[in-house]
Amino acid sequence: MNGAQALIRTLADSGVEVCFANPGTSEMHFVAALDSVPEMRGVLALFEGVVTGAADGYARMAGRPAATLLHLGPGLVNGLANLHNARRGRTPVVNVIGDHAQHHKAVDAPLESDIDALTGWTGGWSRTCVDPAKIGADAAEAVAAAAEGRIANLVLPADVSWGDGGVAANPVPPRGKSTVEDSTLAGVAEVVRSGESTVILLGGASTRERGLRAASRIAAATGVRLFVETFPARIERGAGLPAVDRLGYLAEQVQWQLTDVRHLVLAGAKAPVSFFAYPGKASELTPDGCATHLLADHADDVVDALERLADLVAEGVEPVLQNASRPELPAGPLTPQNWTEVIGALLPEGAIISDEANTSGLMIPMTTAGAPRHDVLTLTGGAIGQGLPVAVGAAVACPDRPVICLQADGSAMYTISALWTMARENLDVTTVVLNNRAYAILRMELTRVGAEAAGPKAKALLDLAAPDLDFVRIAEGMGVPATRATTAEELAEQFSRAIAEPGPHLIDAIVPSLI
Amino acid sequence: MNGAQALIRTLADSGVEVCFANPGTSEMHFVAALDSVPEMRGVLALFEGVVTGAADGYARMAGRPAATLLHLGPGLVNGLANLHNARRGRTPVVNVIGDHAQHHKAVDAPLESDIDALTGWTGGWSRTCVDPAKIGADAAEAVAAAAEGRIANLVLPADVSWGDGGVAANPVPPRGKSTVEDSTLAGVAEVVRSGESTVILLGGASTRERGLRAASRIAAATGVRLFVETFPARIERGAGLPAVDRLGYLAEQVQWQLTDVRHLVLAGAKAPVSFFAYPGKASELTPDGCATHLLADHADDVVDALERLADLVAEGVEPVLQNASRPELPAGPLTPQNWTEVIGALLPEGAIISDEANTSGLMIPMTTAGAPRHDVLTLTGGAIGQGLPVAVGAAVACPDRPVICLQADGSAMYTISALWTMARENLDVTTVVLNNRAYAILRMELTRVGAEAAGPKAKALLDLAAPDLDFVRIAEGMGVPATRATTAEELAEQFSRAIAEPGPHLIDAIVPSLI
Repeated sequence: MNGAQALIRTLADSGVEVCFANPGTSEMHFVAALDSVPEMRGVLALFEGVVTGAADGYARMAGRPAATLLHLGPGLVNGLANLHNARRGRTPVVNVIGDHAQHHKAVDAPLESDIDALTGWTGGWSRTCVDPAKIGADAAEAVAAAAEGRIANLVLPADVSWGDGGVAANPVPPRGKSTVEDSTLAGVAEVVRSGESTVILLGGASTRERGLRAASRIAAATGVRLFVETFPARIERGAGLPAVDRLGYLAEQVQWQLTDVRHLVLAGAKAPVSFFAYPGKASELTPDGCATHLLADHADDVVDALERLADLVAEGVEPVLQNASRPELPAGPLTPQNWTEVIGALLPEGAIISDEANTSGLMIPMTTAGAPRHDVLTLTGGAIGQGLPVAVGAAVACPDRPVICLQADGSAMYTISALWTMARENLDVTTVVLNNRAYAILRMELTRVGAEAAGPKAKALLDLAAPDLDFVRIAEGMGVPATRATTAEELAEQFSRAIAEPGPHLIDAIVPSLI
Repeated sequence: MNGAQALIRTLADSGVEVCFANPGTSEMHFVAALDSVPEMRGVLALFEGVVTGAADGYARMAGRPAATLLHLGPGLVNGLANLHNARRGRTPVVNVIGDHAQHHKAVDAPLESDIDALTGWTGGWSRTCVDPAKIGADAAEAVAAAAEGRIANLVLPADVSWGDGGVAANPVPPRGKSTVEDSTLAGVAEVVRSGESTVILLGGASTRERGLRAASRIAAATGVRLFVETFPARIERGAGLPAVDRLGYLAEQVQWQLTDVRHLVLAGAKAPVSFFAYPGKASELTPDGCATHLLADHADDVVDALERLADLVAEGVEPVLQNASRPELPAGPLTPQNWTEVIGALLPEGAIISDEANTSGLMIPMTTAGAPRHDVLTLTGGAIGQGLPVAVGAAVACPDRPVICLQADGSAMYTISALWTMARENLDVTTVVLNNRAYAILRMELTRVGAEAAGPKAKALLDLAAPDLDFVRIAEGMGVPATRATTAEELAEQFSRAIAEPGPHLIDAIVPSLI
C-alpha cells in the first residue's frame, strides 16, 4: 500500500467518505488511490472555492467532515475564502493539500509557495506528512482535530503519497465537548430568574432542535428573550419547532433588538459586534450597562447546558412551538418581498436552504417561519461565493432531501461553476438566483459609511447591469436546466416544477434592488 | 482631502491610472474617491482572481503597474493565485487591500483575518497605511517597489481611508536595474566564443525585441544556441523578429533540448527545473557536466548586457530574422494541430496572445512563428485561471491592438467571469476556448507520475464531460457574442469575423484531447 492508499483507507475508516476534489499533477497518486477504497466517493469541482464550500455544506448537514483535495499552494488559496466561512461556522473540514515531493521543494519550481503561511491563516490544525508509515496516524489525528469544529490541514508531499510502506491507522476518538459546571448553571439560572430584561443568544449546536426546545422552555418559564446569532452555520426551524429570530446584520438592527437589555447570556455564541466599522459608530453592540454572562462557549456542550438550565428554571414547562402557517401565493411582478412569499408558500417538507440571498433575502426568515420543518445554512464568515458550493455539499450529504439555494447574483458569480458539479452529480438542488443587477448591499453601505455622494465611477463599481447577467444561459451552459421568472406567478410555477423533478434546476428571478 | 483621495491622487501621479476592483463595505470611501481623480479608471471585475490577473496582463503590456482594489483578507485570498503568477513573471502590481478600521480589528468581526500572512505569501513589498497624512508617501513607495517587478501590497484600514488630512505625495523614482560588470561580460564572452556547445537562456526583459536581436547577433556570430525560458511573461515574436524557441514544459523535452550542452548562460532566466517531481527523475534539468554562467539576473539590466555582449563578440553581425510565413488554411474536423494552423493563418497584425491553451496549444508556437509580429503572454506561475483575466488587462492597456485569448476549457472555468468584464468594457478580445472536455494534461500526468492504472473514480476526476460545458451559452450569459466551431473551416470563418468586429467574441472550439 502506498502513502495515498493508506491515507484514504484511514480517512474512510474515520468516517470521512466523500472527497471534494480539484487535483493537479502532484495529487495524481491520491487520485489513483481513490479506486482502492470503495467507501470513498470522489466529487469533482471545477474550482477550489467550490471544493471547500461543498465540504463545508456537507459537514454542516452530515455532522462529520468531508475531505478536500487541493493542488499545492495555488489550489489552496482558491479555496481559502470558503475555508474562512467554515472556520467562522466551526465546521469540520479535512483538507488534503498536495505538495511537491520533498526533494523537489528546494528547486523553487513555478508552483512552489509557502503553504505553511496559508494553512496558518485558516487558524486550524495543520501537519505535513513526511512518512508513508505515519500517514495513517496523521490522517486519523486530522479527522479528530476537525471534529472539534476546526479546519484540519494535511499537507501531502507527492513522494509521501507515492511512497511504499503506507500504514493505515485506526480512528482517533475526538475530544468531546466540555460539560458546563453546575456553578455556572446556577449563576445563569439566577440571571434568567432575575426579572430584569435578559436575552439568551444562541449559537453553535444550540440552534438545532434540542437546544432550541430547551431555550424555548427557559424563555417560556422566565420571560427572557431569545435570539440566534446573526449567521448560524445551521438552524432548524419551521412548523413544530421553536421560532427564534436571528440578530440583525446591521448594527442598528442589533441595537434595536437589544434595547434596554440588562443581561446577555451567551449560549455557544459570541457577544455581538458590528460586521463593519462606520465613522463614529460602535463596534461592540452589547448595550452600555448590560452584563454579559457566559453559559457555554464553543468548546462546551451547549445543548446539555441549556437542557440542564431548563430543568433548573423551567421544570414542567413546554417549549413554544411555531404553528404551521404559510403566506398566500402572491401575484404580480416580482418584488423584494413577494419572491420570499412564493418560497414560503411552496417550501417542501424537509428542505435544506443554503441562504446567500443577501439584501434580497431580508424577508425570507419571516415568510418561511411557519413553513414545514427545514434547515437553513447561512453565510457564516461573510466571504461571498458560498451559497452554491454549500448547496452542493448539503445535497451530497442528504440525497433524500430537497436543497434550495437562495443566491444573490453578485455572489453567485464567485463560484458559479458549482452548477456544473450539481449537474454532474445530479444533485437535487433548486437554485433561485435573486438577480437585482447590482451589488445592492454596497449601494446601501456606500451611504452608511458616510461616503460623499457617489459619482459615476463609484456607481459603476456597484452595478451589475451593462451587460445584464443571464443566469439561464450560464446554467444551461453548465448542464443545469433553467428558466427565468419576472412575476410571482412565474416563480411559483417554475419553483413548483423544479422541486417536483429530481436533479438540479435554476430559476433566474429578476427582482428589483431594495436600494 | 481624505485618505482615499490622497491615495488615488498619488497613484495617478505615479503613473497608475487603472484600478481593477471588486470592492466591499470597507472600501466604500476608496470607491467614492475614484471620481475625485479624473485620470484614474475603475474597472469592475466579478471575482478577485479576475482583478489580479487583469492587473498582471495590464502591466505586462503597459510596462507600468495597475492598482487592484480588494476586500479584506477574503478578497485578497481570491486574488492570490493570479498574484502568484504575477510574482513568477516579476510583473509589477499595486494591491490596495481594504481592512477594517483599526479600532474595529480587536472585536474579531466575521471578515477579520490575518492579512499579513497573506501579503507575506506574495513575497513582495507590504505596508499597512496608518495615517492619512502619510498615505501619499506610502502609495508612492508602493509604486516604486512594484516597478522593481514585485507585488506591492498596501493595506488600507477603513478609518485611514475615510480619515481627514490626507496628503498626496510626489512619485518616488524607482530603483533602476543594475548594470552588469565588464568583467562578467568578458567571462561570458569567453564562454560563447569557446566553440563548446553553449546555450543562452533568455528570460525577463530579454524576450522583447532589443534583447532578442542582441541575442540573435551573438548566436549568429558564435554558433551558440538560444532558448527562451519555458513561460515568459511577455515575448515578442513573429515575422521580422528573431525566432527563439522556448524550453519545453516536460522535463524530457528540456533534457532533449539541452543534450550535450557544456555551458548554460543565464540571461534574466533561472536554470531550468522540472515543473513537477516524478519518481526517480531529476528535478534540476541542467545536464551533468554543464557549467552555468550568470550573465544577468532579474535585478540586472539584461538587455544592456546582451547588447554589450553582442558588441564584444558579434560586431557587424546582424540578427537572424524570421521570414513572414503562414500555414495554409486547413480543412476538416478540428484536431489538436489544425486549430493552431487556423490561428497561424489568420493572426492579425499586432496581436496580443494570452496563451493558456495548455495541452491543446502544443503546436501554436510553430504555427504562429512566421505570423505578423505579435506578443505572447504565458502562464508564468502555473496557477490556472490566468488566460482570460490577462486578456482583460492586456486589452485595457492596449485598446488599439487585437487581443487573442487561447484558453483551455478546464482553466477557463476558474475565472470565467472575466468574460463579463470584457463585455462591460467592450474590450477587443477574441477568446478561443479549446474545449477538449478533459483535464487532458492530468491524464498525461497520471501516466507520467507512474500511478497505477486509473480506475473509474480516478478517471472521473480528470474528465470534464457529463455534462459537457457549453461555452457559447456561458459567454452569451455574460454578454459576449459566441459561436461554436467543430471544423477548421468554421473556426477560420468565425475567427475572421470576430477579429474583424470590435468588442469581445468567444469561439467554443471542440477539439479532441491529445491524450
